[in-house]
Amino acid sequence: MPPKRKIINDPVYGFITLNHPLIFDILSHPYYQRLRRIHQMALAQLVYPGAVHTRLHHSLGAYHLMCNAVIELKYKDVDITPEEETAVKAAILLHDIGHGPFSHALEHSLVAGAHHEELSMQIIHEMNRQLDGRLQLALDIFTGNYHKPFLYQLISGQLDVDRMDYLSRDSFFTGVSEGVIGYDRILKMLVVHNGQLMIEEKGIYSVEKFLIARRQMYWQVYLHKAVLAAEKMLVKIIERVKTIYNTNDIQLQTNCALDYFLNGFNGVMNKAALDMFCSMDDTDMMFAIKRWSKHPDVVLQTLCDGILNRRLLKCQLHDEPIDEGTLHAIRQKVAGQLGISIEEAAFLVFSGEAVNTIYKMDDEHINVLFKDGQVKNIAQVYNPLIHQTLSTPVKKFYICQLK
Amino acid sequence: MPPKRKIINDPVYGFITLNHPLIFDILSHPYYQRLRRIHQMALAQLVYPGAVHTRLHHSLGAYHLMCNAVIELKYKDVDITPEEETAVKAAILLHDIGHGPFSHALEHSLVAGAHHEELSMQIIHEMNRQLDGRLQLALDIFTGNYHKPFLYQLISGQLDVDRMDYLSRDSFFTGVSEGVIGYDRILKMLVVHNGQLMIEEKGIYSVEKFLIARRQMYWQVYLHKAVLAAEKMLVKIIERVKTIYNTNDIQLQTNCALDYFLNGFNGVMNKAALDMFCSMDDTDMMFAIKRWSKHPDVVLQTLCDGILNRRLLKCQLHDEPIDEGTLHAIRQKVAGQLGISIEEAAFLVFSGEAVNTIYKMDDEHINVLFKDGQVKNIAQVYNPLIHQTLSTPVKKFYICQLK
Amino acid sequence: MPPKRKIINDPVYGFITLNHPLIFDILSHPYYQRLRRIHQMALAQLVYPGAVHTRLHHSLGAYHLMCNAVIELKYKDVDITPEEETAVKAAILLHDIGHGPFSHALEHSLVAGAHHEELSMQIIHEMNRQLDGRLQLALDIFTGNYHKPFLYQLISGQLDVDRMDYLSRDSFFTGVSEGVIGYDRILKMLVVHNGQLMIEEKGIYSVEKFLIARRQMYWQVYLHKAVLAAEKMLVKIIERVKTIYNTNDIQLQTNCALDYFLNGFNGVMNKAALDMFCSMDDTDMMFAIKRWSKHPDVVLQTLCDGILNRRLLKCQLHDEPIDEGTLHAIRQKVAGQLGISIEEAAFLVFSGEAVNTIYKMDDEHINVLFKDGQVKNIAQVYNPLIHQTLSTPVKKFYICQLK
Amino acid sequence: MPPKRKIINDPVYGFITLNHPLIFDILSHPYYQRLRRIHQMALAQLVYPGAVHTRLHHSLGAYHLMCNAVIELKYKDVDITPEEETAVKAAILLHDIGHGPFSHALEHSLVAGAHHEELSMQIIHEMNRQLDGRLQLALDIFTGNYHKPFLYQLISGQLDVDRMDYLSRDSFFTGVSEGVIGYDRILKMLVVHNGQLMIEEKGIYSVEKFLIARRQMYWQVYLHKAVLAAEKMLVKIIERVKTIYNTNDIQLQTNCALDYFLNGFNGVMNKAALDMFCSMDDTDMMFAIKRWSKHPDVVLQTLCDGILNRRLLKCQLHDEPIDEGTLHAIRQKVAGQLGISIEEAAFLVFSGEAVNTIYKMDDEHINVLFKDGQVKNIAQVYNPLIHQTLSTPVKKFYICQLK
Repeated sequence: MPPKRKIINDPVYGFITLNHPLIFDILSHPYYQRLRRIHQMALAQLVYPGAVHTRLHHSLGAYHLMCNAVIELKYKDVDITPEEETAVKAAILLHDIGHGPFSHALEHSLVAGAHHEELSMQIIHEMNRQLDGRLQLALDIFTGNYHKPFLYQLISGQLDVDRMDYLSRDSFFTGVSEGVIGYDRILKMLVVHNGQLMIEEKGIYSVEKFLIARRQMYWQVYLHKAVLAAEKMLVKIIERVKTIYNTNDIQLQTNCALDYFLNGFNGVMNKAALDMFCSMDDTDMMFAIKRWSKHPDVVLQTLCDGILNRRLLKCQLHDEPIDEGTLHAIRQKVAGQLGISIEEAAFLVFSGEAVNTIYKMDDEHINVLFKDGQVKNIAQVYNPLIHQTLSTPVKKFYICQLK
Repeated sequence: MPPKRKIINDPVYGFITLNHPLIFDILSHPYYQRLRRIHQMALAQLVYPGAVHTRLHHSLGAYHLMCNAVIELKYKDVDITPEEETAVKAAILLHDIGHGPFSHALEHSLVAGAHHEELSMQIIHEMNRQLDGRLQLALDIFTGNYHKPFLYQLISGQLDVDRMDYLSRDSFFTGVSEGVIGYDRILKMLVVHNGQLMIEEKGIYSVEKFLIARRQMYWQVYLHKAVLAAEKMLVKIIERVKTIYNTNDIQLQTNCALDYFLNGFNGVMNKAALDMFCSMDDTDMMFAIKRWSKHPDVVLQTLCDGILNRRLLKCQLHDEPIDEGTLHAIRQKVAGQLGISIEEAAFLVFSGEAVNTIYKMDDEHINVLFKDGQVKNIAQVYNPLIHQTLSTPVKKFYICQLK
Repeated sequence: MPPKRKIINDPVYGFITLNHPLIFDILSHPYYQRLRRIHQMALAQLVYPGAVHTRLHHSLGAYHLMCNAVIELKYKDVDITPEEETAVKAAILLHDIGHGPFSHALEHSLVAGAHHEELSMQIIHEMNRQLDGRLQLALDIFTGNYHKPFLYQLISGQLDVDRMDYLSRDSFFTGVSEGVIGYDRILKMLVVHNGQLMIEEKGIYSVEKFLIARRQMYWQVYLHKAVLAAEKMLVKIIERVKTIYNTNDIQLQTNCALDYFLNGFNGVMNKAALDMFCSMDDTDMMFAIKRWSKHPDVVLQTLCDGILNRRLLKCQLHDEPIDEGTLHAIRQKVAGQLGISIEEAAFLVFSGEAVNTIYKMDDEHINVLFKDGQVKNIAQVYNPLIHQTLSTPVKKFYICQLK
Repeated sequence: MPPKRKIINDPVYGFITLNHPLIFDILSHPYYQRLRRIHQMALAQLVYPGAVHTRLHHSLGAYHLMCNAVIELKYKDVDITPEEETAVKAAILLHDIGHGPFSHALEHSLVAGAHHEELSMQIIHEMNRQLDGRLQLALDIFTGNYHKPFLYQLISGQLDVDRMDYLSRDSFFTGVSEGVIGYDRILKMLVVHNGQLMIEEKGIYSVEKFLIARRQMYWQVYLHKAVLAAEKMLVKIIERVKTIYNTNDIQLQTNCALDYFLNGFNGVMNKAALDMFCSMDDTDMMFAIKRWSKHPDVVLQTLCDGILNRRLLKCQLHDEPIDEGTLHAIRQKVAGQLGISIEEAAFLVFSGEAVNTIYKMDDEHINVLFKDGQVKNIAQVYNPLIHQTLSTPVKKFYICQLK
């Protein structure tokens, strides 16, 4: 009698198989189900209408790739115990559990000072408590302190299944073929050497493709001008609401956990705050935006209506920082048009750096294992294209303004 | 200088091209942008996690197929004026504009007595007013009274682009290969004869495939037991809220247009009511479910928590109607378990017909044009599989109950 | 140190993995490499230009599905020893080894009286001898006498991996979406009960799809009128050459093993004849056709030129047998036109049955295992579409004639 | 009544539509049908079993992309007359008509001194004669002298539909995802400025992807070590046969046009030679290889058996030229082993440059048209990755030797 098994249709990989009690317990947990209501790509759907897939779907996909990676490494005689296997699968399922409404777009903004990875840790700790310690090994791996570093590197590293899934999945749902990678080939080329995850020499072209695909998706999709504008507008909405928050202004209140983080939160993520956090998702934020789109504050109304009805700020990218004088001049013009102050106009005319740190492109220590046993950092391999990809500056400066 | 043009990435068809001022005006209208917040497949995502695509995306897809159908028919010397071409494209973009939160799942339930097609008509009338009558020809075609019936049949008929898109798109996003159809081949086989849309003789196998694909998607996806359970739970939530509605019960109120339709609506869809309707989308309903999941009413709480955390009622399909005695016995048991009345238990234990009328499988008058000029209804063509597909009963009976 | 492994890119399944010495020995055997030069779909490429894939590619694909089927069944605690696993994989790799030039199209025609499955048996026996008996278990399974019948059924039965691969592959290379099947889902639904291969109850829709896809491919592709014409022309070429064969006619001779089967072969497939057979492939036949296209015999020249330059006979399908009088009249006309005899005209004007026995649609005993342990033949399951598909007559009558 | 039209299933693009009498006349011409028997990727199928597609299929695909390019440019008000439209489509259909057996692999070797593009010109001239001058405009465009240079650039230039098709098609049939390009997006970004074909500014990322994809396919597929070995073995077979040719050696003769080019050809491609050339295809060469694999000459036998049964020479790639001393030592060893002379061993042990000139990567003058009307060579655009891709050396040195 085989153990209970569940098969889930996935348009990207075909089928995803679940077959362990712990995995089922994670999936049915409300904290996990919440990810169903958080879009993977925040507001990218305003440009790519198919990009409405969820964090839950991405987690399942990364879990699927992890299953394949484990099969592959075990085939190559890497020692992975059944407990470690379950733990590393649990850990990848939970790697994004700390994301809040609109993921990266509102990170650092809605819940000030909290990075999604720290929140993930706190939430997994809480789930571990509820699941009688059955997530302890997953936690150990996730913190990177376990004595088999390759397990952590599969979850978070330059060749982790997280990136392989988000590139594949985001490419699939946006329809942007530039992000297609040979994830199955990369998985087959993974090796463990001295406890570290590496790539076989003959996998270099696939890794080259992977690095370039990420770069292409970065500029073409993740930092598409209209996507950038929409996501910065989200940030400005939160900032504006916090600025004008007043407990008597009933139109600002949302009757959900958002209220707490918009006003009462003191920065300490205790159990009560965590519960609040775990009750929020994109729904609350979008509901609030709908509500605020009718608020008398012109700035708030403009931003919220913009998100709702796709009337986005105009966004431009430059190689140099935007001049303060230019910004000020535009703000003055907008302030005059809308009858608002310069400070208020700064919510509708602003600039910043379009950086890619969230996609972790700064630290590419991929090691290559050669047939003769040598190990080299991929950046040292004689391959000018990889070298160039890794050293290409990926910082631009944006300016957003009212059309 | 070519007219303004916009190209949208679509993972299903590659690229969708927009190039007419009227089309741009429709797209940027808030009524249309609202479709971005209504899932095409309601709660099917609880079973198929990829099925989170929107009504807006489906409308765009149907529009794309319409563009191709028009090119094809014009190539075959069918007379279509530039005005008709724009109108029929506008009409297909708007064909689903009357859908409310969770589309079919809550149709007839949230807004009593209103069919989405009538609502579409009313909304298009209103948009036509706002757009200075530029939608008049689209309206004429949409009402089916225009003197070229094939234009209406492209929008709504047995071979319409609506069905071709939803089968292709639902199949794509669920990952269920059984729904794959040869839409491009069917489009190439379309002909107009005596003003009616028909299929060329050599397109019969593609139509056979199309009919079978729809039937397969129907049973495998649209009426999947867990999907059915979830969508019926939505209906029961609305029914329960209406039953216990009390304007003093602040926990039931949602502070959005839902309140109006849950209580104050008198069945007359006047301008004010239409405005209310057009302000609602899935967000409001999901926000309400989150709110109601903490309501003291056990029935409401159970149903809402079930949707939120994927704790669905158990659903079974039978060929015969469910016996009233059986139902009553289960209700009694549930009433005892939860300490509720039999009437209340009926919200958690219920049965009904799983019919497919929403997918319009009952009226399959597809005409085939033979090379010699003959026209035959496809049901009369000697093709036992088509014949069987068309005459196969598609009614089953479901019972849902608390696990 | 893991065993040697080889990964082959396959556009249909992604990657095919080979990892056993016996499998490598089979692959590198000249008898197997010969399959590289035999098209899977004979002359279907004259209609579907992409359909140029080979028997070798199909064998590899079926092998890949077998690997997955074995993993699946072992997961379900079906007892399969490592020896049986290797043997059943070897057997599927070799299942088509007995095909000659242009596969089914010339079967029974070039080598009179020899069915490809008997030839496969003989060739595997010979390979077994060369490989020191290491194919014995594969042979036992292949002959259907092994005490675990499900192993044979995986190779040749209503749910075998042969059919799953050829439908998937032929559909992929022709671009005909009607043949797409959910092979991965069917594989996941396979079970073994009382030693027999069956399908789980919830796999019924996928099997329904599989049966219908096969039927659609049958009529739309395998028996496409132009494909049928081309393949019957091949048969007529062989018949004509045999009729006029004369050892002094140097233009008829091909200087390869074909000569032997066109003239000297006495019907006894001894070792020498088998060697001859195993040296032939599509190349020889196509080379001969090129040569014969310049032969003075008008009939032979017409047929060969027709294949070479895609000047095919006109083919029509009828529900009733073609009347002898009609045939005779057309032959008379053609005889007059070309200045040939009526007997000669019969090579250019002929009729026959378009039957589907080669695709084994006549004997559909698929057993379904229900959750309660019951087993039913799928034809007895209440599913009108399956019932209809299975009982639909699949015989038509063709007539081919010079244009 | 629309003009006659034919629709061809293509697994890469869906459907290819043919609808002009001249196009039908080209397709049915024996010179064009011959391309059906020439593999697009020569012997790449020995590594990528799916890569068996033909030159005919590639030509049809390039024709399809040309149709789309023309629609696109006409939409952008580029002046293209109906005659030019037909001519440019005819020209692309015929762009590879001059390929001989195994295309590039045997170019310059079988028919000494003849480049396939010159042969194409001669063959099109001959077809033009047969088609009463209806190919004159196509010829004018093809020679690059027509007064609208963009028409020629669509056929042969850095953004031509030839490259777009071969990358897409080779990637599809090999299953190597690294070659996937956004051909549809590139086509939409094409513009004509001052008569020259250019790309719009916002198409830069797609072009970057295109350049990188070509580079990846080049090293991963086209110059894969085993593919390189096989194709160089073909060249050595021809060289060996020419060396030992003797009209009395009946075993060397093939009884087809090959004989002429192996021995009698004087380098002048007159009408008789051209007829000979146009009667050859892969079949003849493969038939010859089968025949020669039994020839007593050890060198020839070894090489031919190697191709037939996939016993390839071992190939290595180096950054530096292979040392003559090394080569000589290996040759001596092989000569000793096989009992042949050093000169003979040089057919089995040899080195050379793996260059990519056949894929024309050396001259990348792609012009970019900016919104403000400026035109820049893409190499001057500030995009370090493109710059790097273009300037990366693409020369390596191979050595092949008997295993």
